Amino acid sequence: MKDSKVGTYSFVAEPFHVDFTGKLCMGVLGNHLLNCAGFHATERGFGMAEINEDNYTWVLSRLAVEMEDMPAQYDEFSVDTWVENVYRLFTDRNFAIYGKDGRSYGYARSVWAMINMDTRKPADLLTLHGGNIVDYIETEKPCPIEKPGRIKVGSCMPMRSVEMHYTDIDINGHVNSIKYIEHIMNLFPLDWYAGHVVRRFEMAYVAESYYGDTLSFFREEKEDGSFDIEVRRNVGGENPEGEVVCRSKLKFDNK
Amino acid sequence: MKDSKVGTYSFVAEPFHVDFTGKLCMGVLGNHLLNCAGFHATERGFGMAEINEDNYTWVLSRLAVEMEDMPAQYDEFSVDTWVENVYRLFTDRNFAIYGKDGRSYGYARSVWAMINMDTRKPADLLTLHGGNIVDYIETEKPCPIEKPGRIKVGSCMPMRSVEMHYTDIDINGHVNSIKYIEHIMNLFPLDWYAGHVVRRFEMAYVAESYYGDTLSFFREEKEDGSFDIEVRRNVGGENPEGEVVCRSKLKFDNK
Repeated sequence: MKDSKVGTYSFVAEPFHVDFTGKLCMGVLGNHLLNCAGFHATERGFGMAEINEDNYTWVLSRLAVEMEDMPAQYDEFSVDTWVENVYRLFTDRNFAIYGKDGRSYGYARSVWAMINMDTRKPADLLTLHGGNIVDYIETEKPCPIEKPGRIKVGSCMPMRSVEMHYTDIDINGHVNSIKYIEHIMNLFPLDWYAGHVVRRFEMAYVAESYYGDTLSFFREEKEDGSFDIEVRRNVGGENPEGEVVCRSKLKFDNK
Repeated sequence: MKDSKVGTYSFVAEPFHVDFTGKLCMGVLGNHLLNCAGFHATERGFGMAEINEDNYTWVLSRLAVEMEDMPAQYDEFSVDTWVENVYRLFTDRNFAIYGKDGRSYGYARSVWAMINMDTRKPADLLTLHGGNIVDYIETEKPCPIEKPGRIKVGSCMPMRSVEMHYTDIDINGHVNSIKYIEHIMNLFPLDWYAGHVVRRFEMAYVAESYYGDTLSFFREEKEDGSFDIEVRRNVGGENPEGEVVCRSKLKFDNK
């Protein structure tokens, strides 16, 4: 029997959600993880809808996904999610992704803040609902991957610039957190994915971007072979540096 | 009790699957419909996996979706699907989309062929599995929308050209049928969607396109206010006309 502090949700890798190698797309996995976070929080009384009533909203700050393998087309898989820690301004939520037979696909870590929707100022999580969010902290369950780390891009020449269109925009009028993942995955050619798998994928969400923004993608290959990526909005003109929107780090393994 | 010729599948409109107005994205709905087609066919012995064993595959030729309304974020909705007709070379599959309370959101029609995976030639559906596909024809259930119609684009100046990247490509190495829908939806600005809803959306899939292809989108507004769209791959150079990949028609209503 699982502890009720852990939520478990099941999925199947749908045909239009796998890439040309037949494995689940990283953006689709990210969407499932964020949905699981929402289900788990809602079931425990601190979901988006509940905290919106008090004029607060959850903001995803960091996401790190580390996969030994990805589910293949039609594979059933499950996601466990739980709260590892609650601090005053941030909470750590972890995920385990595993197959029907119990095999582990991988793990993920996320960091969230709660902000006031008017002032955009962070709220004190330890006082949320009389402090009862800490009742859901699960410290026993392992998440054997590193915490999100530092991402630093020195490159000053964008690899690509992409204008944000209708389907990039979410219900808040911001570029959808999942769409950033897809645009970042597209910085690598198909041939690269034929020979490499993503072992670890990190996102650091820094600021919002909007419809009509042009996002510029700066990429730097690090000494350890990983790639650090910085996404900036509206580079050039009066603001030559633009504004940093998010950063990402990808570590690949040879197939 | 529903007739077993009709399959019913349930969904919820997920947060990252709705647009800035909070309504389900057309591409996401299209994905759900095609998944339902797969579930229904698989449960009756003529799904992709089964016919692949005999070296055949289903090819989607036409899709027409007509919606009175779209599910909003977190709304539960269901899709009924059934086979309306089987001809020698094509089969008509219909869909009804409705809410938890039984309210109708809309309907869809699709047309499919089955081809031999080596010769790419169409197969005779009436002889599939000893002809038993016809046992699943459901003629009583209504689908009160028009069949897919003719789409004709006169424009010779593309509105936009887009290169196909990694996340556009499906397990067969082709541009994903759903991604065409998203690229087509992106031909209209956010302001347009603020004032208009898609009443009817049609796709005619003509030929495949591939990684690295540049797709050019030609759009023509018709006398009745609908928009016909033609998508061509690799226009220019030795082949100034390019090759038609798909066509689409959108009818909008004012909000």
